[in-house]
Amino acid sequence: MGVRRRLGMWMAMAACVSAAVPATAQEAAPHGLMPVPASVTFDGGSLPIDARFAVAFAGARDQVLARAVERMLLRITKLTGLPIVREGGTVALTIRCTMPASPVPSAVDDESYLLKVTSSGATLTAPTPYGALHGMETFIQLIRQEPNGFAARGATILDKPRFPWRGLLIDVSRHWIPPDVIKRNLDAMAAVKLNVLHWHLSEDQGFRVESKVYPLLHQKGSDGLYYTQDQVRDIVRYAADRGIRVVPEFDMPGHTGSWLVGYPWLSSGKGPFEIGRVWGVYDPVLDATNEKVYAFVDRLIGEMAALFPDAYFHVGGDEVNGKQWDASPAVVAYRKQRGMKTNDDLQAYFNTRVSAMLARRGKVMVGWDEVLHKDLPKNTVVQSWRGQKSLAEAASQGYAGILSNGYYLDYIWPASQHYAVDPVGKDAAGLPEEARKRILGGEACMWGEWVTPETIDSRIWPRTAAIAERYWSPATITDAADMYRRLHGVSRQLDATGVTHRSGYTAMLDRLANDGPTEALRGIVDLVEPVKNYSRGRRAKFTSQMALNRIVDVAGAESDEARAFGQAVDALLADPSKPERRDPVVAALRRWQMSAREVQPVMSAPLLQEAAPLVQNVAALSGFGLRAVEALEKKWKLALTAEETDAMTWAAAPVADVLLMVAPHVKKLVDAAGK
Amino acid sequence: MGVRRRLGMWMAMAACVSAAVPATAQEAAPHGLMPVPASVTFDGGSLPIDARFAVAFAGARDQVLARAVERMLLRITKLTGLPIVREGGTVALTIRCTMPASPVPSAVDDESYLLKVTSSGATLTAPTPYGALHGMETFIQLIRQEPNGFAARGATILDKPRFPWRGLLIDVSRHWIPPDVIKRNLDAMAAVKLNVLHWHLSEDQGFRVESKVYPLLHQKGSDGLYYTQDQVRDIVRYAADRGIRVVPEFDMPGHTGSWLVGYPWLSSGKGPFEIGRVWGVYDPVLDATNEKVYAFVDRLIGEMAALFPDAYFHVGGDEVNGKQWDASPAVVAYRKQRGMKTNDDLQAYFNTRVSAMLARRGKVMVGWDEVLHKDLPKNTVVQSWRGQKSLAEAASQGYAGILSNGYYLDYIWPASQHYAVDPVGKDAAGLPEEARKRILGGEACMWGEWVTPETIDSRIWPRTAAIAERYWSPATITDAADMYRRLHGVSRQLDATGVTHRSGYTAMLDRLANDGPTEALRGIVDLVEPVKNYSRGRRAKFTSQMALNRIVDVAGAESDEARAFGQAVDALLADPSKPERRDPVVAALRRWQMSAREVQPVMSAPLLQEAAPLVQNVAALSGFGLRAVEALEKKWKLALTAEETDAMTWAAAPVADVLLMVAPHVKKLVDAAGK
Repeated sequence: MGVRRRLGMWMAMAACVSAAVPATAQEAAPHGLMPVPASVTFDGGSLPIDARFAVAFAGARDQVLARAVERMLLRITKLTGLPIVREGGTVALTIRCTMPASPVPSAVDDESYLLKVTSSGATLTAPTPYGALHGMETFIQLIRQEPNGFAARGATILDKPRFPWRGLLIDVSRHWIPPDVIKRNLDAMAAVKLNVLHWHLSEDQGFRVESKVYPLLHQKGSDGLYYTQDQVRDIVRYAADRGIRVVPEFDMPGHTGSWLVGYPWLSSGKGPFEIGRVWGVYDPVLDATNEKVYAFVDRLIGEMAALFPDAYFHVGGDEVNGKQWDASPAVVAYRKQRGMKTNDDLQAYFNTRVSAMLARRGKVMVGWDEVLHKDLPKNTVVQSWRGQKSLAEAASQGYAGILSNGYYLDYIWPASQHYAVDPVGKDAAGLPEEARKRILGGEACMWGEWVTPETIDSRIWPRTAAIAERYWSPATITDAADMYRRLHGVSRQLDATGVTHRSGYTAMLDRLANDGPTEALRGIVDLVEPVKNYSRGRRAKFTSQMALNRIVDVAGAESDEARAFGQAVDALLADPSKPERRDPVVAALRRWQMSAREVQPVMSAPLLQEAAPLVQNVAALSGFGLRAVEALEKKWKLALTAEETDAMTWAAAPVADVLLMVAPHVKKLVDAAGK
Repeated sequence: MGVRRRLGMWMAMAACVSAAVPATAQEAAPHGLMPVPASVTFDGGSLPIDARFAVAFAGARDQVLARAVERMLLRITKLTGLPIVREGGTVALTIRCTMPASPVPSAVDDESYLLKVTSSGATLTAPTPYGALHGMETFIQLIRQEPNGFAARGATILDKPRFPWRGLLIDVSRHWIPPDVIKRNLDAMAAVKLNVLHWHLSEDQGFRVESKVYPLLHQKGSDGLYYTQDQVRDIVRYAADRGIRVVPEFDMPGHTGSWLVGYPWLSSGKGPFEIGRVWGVYDPVLDATNEKVYAFVDRLIGEMAALFPDAYFHVGGDEVNGKQWDASPAVVAYRKQRGMKTNDDLQAYFNTRVSAMLARRGKVMVGWDEVLHKDLPKNTVVQSWRGQKSLAEAASQGYAGILSNGYYLDYIWPASQHYAVDPVGKDAAGLPEEARKRILGGEACMWGEWVTPETIDSRIWPRTAAIAERYWSPATITDAADMYRRLHGVSRQLDATGVTHRSGYTAMLDRLANDGPTEALRGIVDLVEPVKNYSRGRRAKFTSQMALNRIVDVAGAESDEARAFGQAVDALLADPSKPERRDPVVAALRRWQMSAREVQPVMSAPLLQEAAPLVQNVAALSGFGLRAVEALEKKWKLALTAEETDAMTWAAAPVADVLLMVAPHVKKLVDAAGK
C-alpha cells in the first residue's frame, strides 16, 4: 500500500469517504454478480474507492493486463463519476498473474482466478492474463454505493467457467455492422465473461471482408460495406486484448449468393446473380462437383485462415436446399458416378474436402449441424441450431459440439427462456461423461435480418448476459427471479462498456415522435415487445434496404414494466383483500391511461401512423384493469360486454409487429374479477 | 443522375418511398435550420432520401470532402435509420468545390456555399472545401420526415458566416477531458458551423500536454492525465478535417501552478508547489524578471508552436494577482530599476517578450483582456471575458478582438440569455466601420471546474448551438422563441454526432437512483437546473478529485419543461376563462405530484439524500398550483397560510445546488389567484 498523498486539513476531512466502512447489515444483502462465480463468500467490510484508486502488478506487468487496467479505470470512472488519477494514486488492488499473455487467446486457456477484497486492499491472482481479465470484471461488479461513497464489497471469490466455449454470433451480412459496433459489443462480451465472437461474415446478402485474391467478392457482393483486412486484424487484436477469440464463418456451399455476383461460375445454377435483398433460404449454391470451385475455395480459405489466427474456422454448411444441384444434369451425373445417393452425400463430400483444406492450415472445421454425416471428419465441431438432440447425437458420435438452439436472440424471447436452456440438456444428460465433455459450450446467435448498427445492441443486451451466466456459472444456478434481479444492475453496468441498448432508446423515440415530446410515447413503448420467433418476416415482405425505424425496432426486446406488472397482478390476486397490493397495480394502470391520452399529439408523426390501434388498446386495457381492481375491491362481479371482450382479445394481438405485453396480465385481472 | 438499379416488381412497389413528393402545404412550414443561413428560399418539393442515396463530386475529389461525405452518410443513417449503401447507389447530391483543402483551415478561408435542393437532385457549390463542409451540414438539416419517408426539403441557400472566428473554449485542465470527448465535441461543433477549438491546456490544476523539452511539466503536473503529442496531432488533424482550427492556450504568467510542481524555480514565490485541487485564483506566478524563465518559455513555445499549426497562439494573461511579485524583493527591485510603476507594467513587459517569441515562429499572440496595456504589441488579438467594453476599447485602439463575456457556459444561463449577446454590442456599435471589423467573432467558454467527461456535453449542448447561430447568422436573427423551436430539433440532431448531452442522461439517473427505477426521478430532475453563475463554488469547498455525480450534475443546463410550463401559465393567465388553457397547466402539475409521490422508494439512495427537501418542494408547489387553477376557474380568491407562503418562498431557493425552475411560474399562478 502506498502512502496517501499529503493534503490540506479540510481536504483530508473531505476525503473521509476513503475511510474504511465497517461491516454492516448490508453484508447479508444479495450480491449483483453476473455470471455468478463458481464460489463466493462475503467476508464483511468493503474497500473504499475514490479518485486516488490505483492498481499495481505483483511480478511481470503484462501489456494485455496493463491495457485492461486502463479500461477498468475508465469503467469505474463511468460507473461512479470519480475522476481517477493515473499517477500518484494509492494502490488498492494488486494483480498477480503467473503466465504472460499468448499472442491470442485459445480454447484451452485456464480462465480461473482468485479475487480477495478486504477493507484494506484487494488482490487478484490468476494463472493466465485471461483469468485475470475475468477477475477484473468481477471486481468492477463488486463496487456499490455505500452511505459514504463507493466501495468494493469484501469477498473471497474462487472462480472458473463451466464451459470453455462461450460465444456470441454476430451476423454482419444481412445488415452491415461497422467496426465500432463490433468493438463495443466485444467490450460488453468481456464484461460478462464471454470468450468467443463468432463472426458470420458472408451470406446471400453480403460478403463482408476484403479479399485480395478474389476482390470481386467484396467489390460486387457488399454494396461497398465490408471490413478491410486492416480492420479485421484490428478487431481480432481488440478481441484478443479482451480475452476473446474470433471464429470467422464463411458459410458454404449454400448461403453464397453474394459470392456469385462477382463469380457466377462458382454456382451450379445459371447467373447473373444479384445481392440478396430479402430474407429466407436462397437456391444458389456452390457447385460441389467442380474442381475449379475447390481450387477457389482453397485459395480463399488460405487467405482468410491467415487473417484469423484462431484454431477454429466455421464453414457454415446449413440450409442447402439442393434445388440447383438437382436441376443440374452435370451434378446429377457426378453424384451417380460417385455412388452418392443424396445431396447430403454430396455436401458431406464437399465438407471432407474443405476440412482437409483447413487441416493443412492447422485449422479445425466448425459447421452447423446439417454437416453431421457418416463421412464427416471426426475432428469437426458441430454447432447445433436445430435442436439439443443433434448436439447429443454429435457428442455420442465423437464430435465436439456447441449449442445454439435455444439461444437465438432474434426470436425475441425473454431472458428467462434462454436462461432455462442448458448446453447439457436432457438429451445429453444420459451421455457417458466422456461424450458429455465434448459439449464445449454454447453461442447466443444474433442473426441480422432485423437489426442495424442502431438497434443491434438492444437485441443482444441485456439478455445475452443471462445466457453468458448459463455458460459460465455452475449448472445449479437456475433461479430466474434472482437472475432478473441481477440482470437489472448488469444491464446498467453494460452502459459503461459503450453498448447502446439503453442510451440509444432516447434518440430512437425522438425519431419515432418526429422530434415531438416523447415522455408519453416512452410510456407506451415501454409496454411492448417485438413479435416473437420469425413472425415479423411472415407478416410482410421486406427488403434489406428499408429502414428499421418502426416502433417494433425501437421497442426493447423484453418489457421490464410488463414483467413487474405481471408480478404485481399475481400478488394482488393471491390476496385481493390487501389494499397495499392494489396500489402498484392501480398506479401502473393510471400511468398507462395517462400515456395513452398524452401521446395523442405526436401520433400524427409519419412513423407512428401504424401504431394508432396500439394506443387505443392501451387505453382500453387500462380502463378494464381499473374496473377489475374496483370490482375485486368491492367484491362485485365484473361483466364485460361482448364488444369489450373482443377489445380485450384484440389488445393481445400484434399491432405494427409489436405485442402489448401487459395484455395477458390485465386479462388475468379481468377474469378474476368476473368470477 | 444514375439509373436506379433494377428491382423485382414488389420491390419497386415497396420503393415508392423514393418517388418525388409533390409540393404541399408543408412548404409554408417554418424551417429547422440552425444557424439560420444568410439567405434561404424554399422552392417547394423535396428530394427523397433512401438507402440508395449517393453523393458525387463534380471536378476534383478532395480527400477532406470524401471523408466528410462518409461522415454525412453515417449521420443520415443515424437520423433516418436507413442502411445507406456505399457502392451502386443513385447520385442525389453533387458537390462542386473550386479549391482543394489547405493542410489546415485558416482564419481567412472563404466559408461560403450555395446549396440547391430540388425534387430531382441537389447541388452544393463552394469555393473551398470548408464552405462545402458547412453546406453538407445544412443539407443534413434539410432532411425531414414526410408521409412517405425521409426527404430533403427543396430550397436555394446562399450562405456565409457573419464572423470569421466562431469558437468554443474547452478547459481540460481543471478536470481532465480525454481525446474521445474532444473529438465528439468537434463533430458537434462542425454540425453548427463553429470553426475554432480554443483548447485551454494548462492551469494551476493541470498541465495537459506531453512536453519533450520539459517533461516534468506533464509528468508532475497532470496526475498522469495528459495528451501525448501523437494524440494532439491526431486531434488537430481531426479538427482540420472538419474545418476547425485549433488554438492552444498555455496560460501565463499566472495560472501556472501545475508547471511549478516540476519546475519550482520558474516562480518568484517559494516552493514546493502542488497541483491545485481547489478552484479560484492562485498566487503562484512565473518570475517575469528572470531571464532563465524567458529561456524556458521560449523553448516551450517553440515546442508547442510546432505541435499546433494554427497561426494563432493563446498565452492567457488573466488573473495575475501580483501577490508573489510584490512579496519578492528581487521583483520589486527589478520593477524599480526599469521604471515600471505597477505589476501591469511588468506583465506588459512579459507579454511583449512572449509576443516576440511567437512572432519569430510566425504566430500571432492571443490574450485575455487583462493584456490590454499601452505597451501591448498591436498585432495581439484580445479576448474579452470581462465585458463588451474592453472589446470595444481594444478594437478602437487597433487590436483585433473576440468576445467571450456573455458566453460563459459554466454560468448555466438559458440559451436565450447568451443568444441576446452580440459580439458587436452597444459598446462597439458606435465604432467606425474599420474598428468594428476588428471584432473577429466570439467564443463560448466551457470552463472546467464543474464538468467531467461524463457531464461536459450536457453543459456545452444544446446551448452552444444558439451561440453558434449568433456568430454565423445575420445580426437581424434575434427571435428567441424561434431559436428555441429550432434548438429543440438541433439538440436531437446533435445526438447523431456522438455528443451525449441527451443520451448520457439515462445512465446518470440510474446512478443517482442507485439502479432503482428512474421514471419518477426523471420527472423531478427534468424540473431543475444547476444554480447560476458561480454560486455553486461559493456554497461549499470542493476538490477536483470529488465525483461530479450529484443531482446538480445530472440536471440539464436548461429545463425545457419549466420553460414550457411558464408559457402555459402565461397563456392561461392571459385569459383564465378558456378551459383549454387550463389543461396543460393542470396536466403538468398532476404529473409533478405523481413524480413526487412515486420517487419516494429511490430517495433512500445515498446520492439522493440531499434532495429530499427538493421533492417536498415539488409536492408542495403542485398542490398550490392545482389550488390556484381551481380558484381561477371558480373565481375564488386563493389565500395561502403564512406557512404555505413560506413554503412557496423556500421552493424557489436552491436545494442541493439546484433550482426548481417551475417555482416562479407556480408563484405567478398563486399570485394571480390571490387577487
